[in-house]
Amino acid sequence: MLTPERIDTNSLDLTRQLNDVGVEVVAKYVVGDHLERLEGVVRLALSRSQIVILSGGLGPTEDDLTREAVAAALGRKLIYHPEIAEALEQRFARLHRKMAEVNKRQAFVIEGAEILPNERGTAPGQWIEVSSFNAAGAVIMMLPGPPHELKAMFERQCLPRLCRMLPPQVIRVRELHVAGMGESDLDQLIAPVYKKYGNPATTILAGAGDIQIRFCARCATADEAEALLSEVSGPIEALLGDRIYSHNGDSIEQVVGKLLLAAGATLSVAESCTGGLLGERLTGVAGSSEYFLGGFITYSNALKTELLGVPPEMLAEHGAVSKPVAEAMAEGARRRSGSTFALAITGIAGPGGGTDTKPVGLTYIGLAGPQGTEVVERQFLGDRARIRQFASQVALDLLRRKLGAGGSGAGATGAGSA
Amino acid sequence: MLTPERIDTNSLDLTRQLNDVGVEVVAKYVVGDHLERLEGVVRLALSRSQIVILSGGLGPTEDDLTREAVAAALGRKLIYHPEIAEALEQRFARLHRKMAEVNKRQAFVIEGAEILPNERGTAPGQWIEVSSFNAAGAVIMMLPGPPHELKAMFERQCLPRLCRMLPPQVIRVRELHVAGMGESDLDQLIAPVYKKYGNPATTILAGAGDIQIRFCARCATADEAEALLSEVSGPIEALLGDRIYSHNGDSIEQVVGKLLLAAGATLSVAESCTGGLLGERLTGVAGSSEYFLGGFITYSNALKTELLGVPPEMLAEHGAVSKPVAEAMAEGARRRSGSTFALAITGIAGPGGGTDTKPVGLTYIGLAGPQGTEVVERQFLGDRARIRQFASQVALDLLRRKLGAGGSGAGATGAGSA
Repeated sequence: MLTPERIDTNSLDLTRQLNDVGVEVVAKYVVGDHLERLEGVVRLALSRSQIVILSGGLGPTEDDLTREAVAAALGRKLIYHPEIAEALEQRFARLHRKMAEVNKRQAFVIEGAEILPNERGTAPGQWIEVSSFNAAGAVIMMLPGPPHELKAMFERQCLPRLCRMLPPQVIRVRELHVAGMGESDLDQLIAPVYKKYGNPATTILAGAGDIQIRFCARCATADEAEALLSEVSGPIEALLGDRIYSHNGDSIEQVVGKLLLAAGATLSVAESCTGGLLGERLTGVAGSSEYFLGGFITYSNALKTELLGVPPEMLAEHGAVSKPVAEAMAEGARRRSGSTFALAITGIAGPGGGTDTKPVGLTYIGLAGPQGTEVVERQFLGDRARIRQFASQVALDLLRRKLGAGGSGAGATGAGSA
Repeated sequence: MLTPERIDTNSLDLTRQLNDVGVEVVAKYVVGDHLERLEGVVRLALSRSQIVILSGGLGPTEDDLTREAVAAALGRKLIYHPEIAEALEQRFARLHRKMAEVNKRQAFVIEGAEILPNERGTAPGQWIEVSSFNAAGAVIMMLPGPPHELKAMFERQCLPRLCRMLPPQVIRVRELHVAGMGESDLDQLIAPVYKKYGNPATTILAGAGDIQIRFCARCATADEAEALLSEVSGPIEALLGDRIYSHNGDSIEQVVGKLLLAAGATLSVAESCTGGLLGERLTGVAGSSEYFLGGFITYSNALKTELLGVPPEMLAEHGAVSKPVAEAMAEGARRRSGSTFALAITGIAGPGGGTDTKPVGLTYIGLAGPQGTEVVERQFLGDRARIRQFASQVALDLLRRKLGAGGSGAGATGAGSA
């Protein structure tokens, strides 16, 4: 269980995978490590849903109460399984550590539950089928909280089992990711299309320089659902053209990576205000070493000169946040790394450092390549994190358009410069 | 409203601030853009709580249904306010854009609600006091979804108003942040202390190389709460010593920044597998340009040689993921940037690239400084993102210990090398 203070990431992946097999997620509850409240939420969820998934609270510590809460909600006993304790002890021994006594709490299993082995951590999961709460019966899955443990257990053990129990109704989802457009402008453009349909349901979510349009169709067959998705998504893709960077859920850094690979090109970066964020996003993609050579975090002016060859007199005359400096940074990174393309970012991320002529959020983004260098100026709004995110997004989109616009598949046409 | 697929970040900050003024957050509900379900959740929340905060769904698009849902739950009308539409039009004009017609949806206000102006976005919030659902009456706050808009509106407009309505009961929270220890080892060490207390409530949350211990005390006065917190936290701080890096919620990058500032020292980084993450974390702290000079993202071997002077024969003999290369990277970054200290990370983040002798997760972290260079070897478990997060955390902790261990305040003693 997450406390009310903690970011939840597990439910995203779970929801997507449940949708794929026709299960709608109608609600999510987040409660703290409190036995009665946990028990209450389990009861409430069982009264409303046929599938209840609990994540977290299976660990060794005193505040891990999910086992006790579910047992109480079901009126069942907790039974100690010595073989689980033994396996845990062996796991610790392999890591040359002695197991702490508290870990034995993880060996308690609810009466009638099946044990789900945990390949990536210590807390085993539990699968319980119950019939007492509603006519249709229900399944309770108790999964560990750490995302990498939960994901492996759900995908390999729970999902196959769940699929065998479900009727053949499908939910199919299609996502379009759009860069370089505001939310209300986008909605005004596409609402006349999607408003005609109740199914698929259309959701628009806006991030920093990034909008996700999600269509969700519910049909008896996959073919039917896919046809319905195309009916809505087709005209919208035509309206948005190359502002769509992805049709399949790929992030913009994945799209840029694929375009670089296809072009046999390499990339380097020069970052000032983003301090490594652009490199971090690019290298978050597995296999990025195929096209990403590296980069320069030139936070100080001295390093802009030393590492990238930005002339000190240029910095003095125009300031570090300026068009010529962005250009010189991109060209310096390209020259010094030997990459095909180089992206450079220099801006004022705030909260301090803004002036009347150069307010917080002012950012210059340079792209150097074989055909020369271009620089775009942007005025971003928001706090430090949002301005940095915006800047890295616009940089990635600038390169995407240079490399030929497309997401994968339909709709996208031609290259364009921002 | 968030769809069930979307990460929620707003509730963390809200919960913390509500706790600070004595309001306990007992539950969080996440539902999609669906009018009846939204209405149902508003009714449910009103039946259980005196304060109901809704975030999101106030935007211009068709799927923004919070206004309609709350109006339906309360049985009140929505009233069009032309002055809101006019202010929106002026806002767009200032940005040299024409307002899309759909934005006028944002000018609808629930009968009897007070309008909360939005300083950072287009959607105004609403504040509604109701008495019909329970004896004590209730307050409904409708806030915009984007975090920077919500935060400003809540802190500046809602919180002060709320404080005037609340009885003088306080919740005080203290957090300890610990690096370099596993969750179960930590719990075994400190459980004998905190288990004796129901108040404060103790929560332990583990991240990649990072554990947060949170004590939450509820008392009639702030003094009483603080005394109770010290009673529990004191002995635990003594047990954990310099493994505690922060006593006040500061992140490890903030702690490192303060230690560097205090020492009058500067820092540079050399990153291979983390690709910019370490620099990104360090520069996420406002004012980091005071001590962070910049860095080198040397993803390719050629750039390790070219930018950091790592000898090609060393790379050939030991491989890029090795102790000597981490050492050479750290020393190269320090030399080329002229910084007091330099941190270097080279490792195998996976999922590919592992071998029998060098498995995925093997990472070397180097720290070069005026007294020489040290390198630590670590074997991290988890996926690519987790291994990278772990590596950056251990690097920051290595420097923290070199600079004199301490978080701010109590307990921490002496420097130590990991």
